[in-house]
Amino acid sequence: MKKFVNEVDSMLREALSGLIEAHPQLLRVEFEPTFVARREGGANKVALISGGGSGHEPLHAGFVGRGMLDAACPGQVFTSPTPDQMLAAAAAVDTGRGVLFIVKNYAGDGMNFQMAAEMLETGNATVLVNDDVAVENSTHTTGRRGVAGTLVVEKMVGALAEQGATLAECKALGDRVNAATASMGVAFTSCTVPAAGRPTFDIGPDEIEIGVGIHGEPGRRRAAHMPADEIVRTLLDAILGDLKPQAGRQLLLHVNGFGGTPLMELYLLHHAAGRRLKAEGLAPVRSLVGNYTTSLEMAGASLTVTLLDDELLALWDAPVHTAALRW
Amino acid sequence: MKKFVNEVDSMLREALSGLIEAHPQLLRVEFEPTFVARREGGANKVALISGGGSGHEPLHAGFVGRGMLDAACPGQVFTSPTPDQMLAAAAAVDTGRGVLFIVKNYAGDGMNFQMAAEMLETGNATVLVNDDVAVENSTHTTGRRGVAGTLVVEKMVGALAEQGATLAECKALGDRVNAATASMGVAFTSCTVPAAGRPTFDIGPDEIEIGVGIHGEPGRRRAAHMPADEIVRTLLDAILGDLKPQAGRQLLLHVNGFGGTPLMELYLLHHAAGRRLKAEGLAPVRSLVGNYTTSLEMAGASLTVTLLDDELLALWDAPVHTAALRW
Repeated sequence: MKKFVNEVDSMLREALSGLIEAHPQLLRVEFEPTFVARREGGANKVALISGGGSGHEPLHAGFVGRGMLDAACPGQVFTSPTPDQMLAAAAAVDTGRGVLFIVKNYAGDGMNFQMAAEMLETGNATVLVNDDVAVENSTHTTGRRGVAGTLVVEKMVGALAEQGATLAECKALGDRVNAATASMGVAFTSCTVPAAGRPTFDIGPDEIEIGVGIHGEPGRRRAAHMPADEIVRTLLDAILGDLKPQAGRQLLLHVNGFGGTPLMELYLLHHAAGRRLKAEGLAPVRSLVGNYTTSLEMAGASLTVTLLDDELLALWDAPVHTAALRW
Repeated sequence: MKKFVNEVDSMLREALSGLIEAHPQLLRVEFEPTFVARREGGANKVALISGGGSGHEPLHAGFVGRGMLDAACPGQVFTSPTPDQMLAAAAAVDTGRGVLFIVKNYAGDGMNFQMAAEMLETGNATVLVNDDVAVENSTHTTGRRGVAGTLVVEKMVGALAEQGATLAECKALGDRVNAATASMGVAFTSCTVPAAGRPTFDIGPDEIEIGVGIHGEPGRRRAAHMPADEIVRTLLDAILGDLKPQAGRQLLLHVNGFGGTPLMELYLLHHAAGRRLKAEGLAPVRSLVGNYTTSLEMAGASLTVTLLDDELLALWDAPVHTAALRW
């Protein structure tokens, strides 16, 4: 295993230290227990907290800042954070308007965030993100997995919270964005979890995993490698089959790299997906292309589509200032 | 070779189409010959043009926009663009204040940009970037290679040009930033150039290439894999040995991923490098961490240090609005 690492056990702490040192005006970190929070907290707003296993950077700590999250709780690589982290984060960023947890649908995350929600004495609610249309149940999940659509939920709810919306309004919007969002991905290679030291799964030199999860969980099927346009067709067939958008509908198209695929290929995918969406009579009016919800160094990518309306478009366009997303 | 590609020959065109479609307000592209330019050109300013082989994205097209480049000329993967691209880009973005070419020091790029400079009838100058301290001559280079420090030159000169500086002032600043900047990288894996279809070089499962170039050119030596702190020490010894900063000097520290290394490891490197610089009595006051000057999907990273003064600090902090860099 060739990685930039000193000791596997100290990797997360060293990486979070580096994140904070690179963004000293924006972020602060606590280690006992571990969470990342906005250096300057929002005043009189619903506090948005997310978290999950590490190894998906910049998700979630890279999305902490004005217009998005107030705090993020990182677990060890591909391991859920614990309730004490979520409670400490909530105590740090709660302004009295309540706490909204945004949680990707995995068994460990769901259980730990639920435990924190029950223990938390302040008003709180949870948005469970399950945008991955690939499979109904999976290795670590009952129901659909939460993947790159989480970014879209965090961005739009983040904008609404910044405007002073109530906890109930933020919760309702999060559920609405999640319902309007669908994703599916494909992997070319496995990643290697540092503590395991070997690839999570084996895959042949000409095989691809269609519908892969962001921890390398199996998807729908193994297939022979195929041209980019055919991969895009396969992914969008599943996504549009789920969302069933009406003709002319405005969309956000998010092309997400898993970590090991060059940006040139991600932009090529964006071109292919945009062409296909337009051919279906749809209107991809907003785009995000890059490595945002990664699986360490896995080669591959996912497509995410969110159906827009005037409110969601305005929330997407609202200013955001985080380490990884800024406009 | 598993990549997102339809036909190798159309890959660059499809990727550039995707880039423009993802950033329609910011960028435009021409294909005959190929260049990317600001959608809304700067008025009455020196035109800054860079370019080089593709496969290093987001360099250079991702740095086109307000406060940085006016145009970028992408060649095929790891292949220099041609003078007709540079001349067409110059014609498109020249405002009458002259054209500054910012060129990474490789034989092909140097020759083609020089040819364009000689043919161009408007006033022009060239900044040759050669920040890589690893080796004096290399596979495609006489003298030192230009690598991730190019971003720093483009950012600082871009800010100066935006303020209305003259061509001579922009040229002088570019040379000054280049002289104040040093970089060195390390590779864990090779990348695969699409047209070649196989890895550029072989490397063992426990070997690393110290001082690698951004096309996979050999560096100083092969070594056994080592802890992150030891890699950082090796790279910074070479960088500081070149720059010879005085104690207390303010620095910009840029940790650049080559494309296949997770962000978590890049932030870990940033922490290690910052610690080492502070231990040397230096002051790393600005940071940039991410995949900016890539080598397709190569795993590995480079460190870049720029010695700052008040002017360079202000130029670094000046607003920038491009696809890949924004503040």
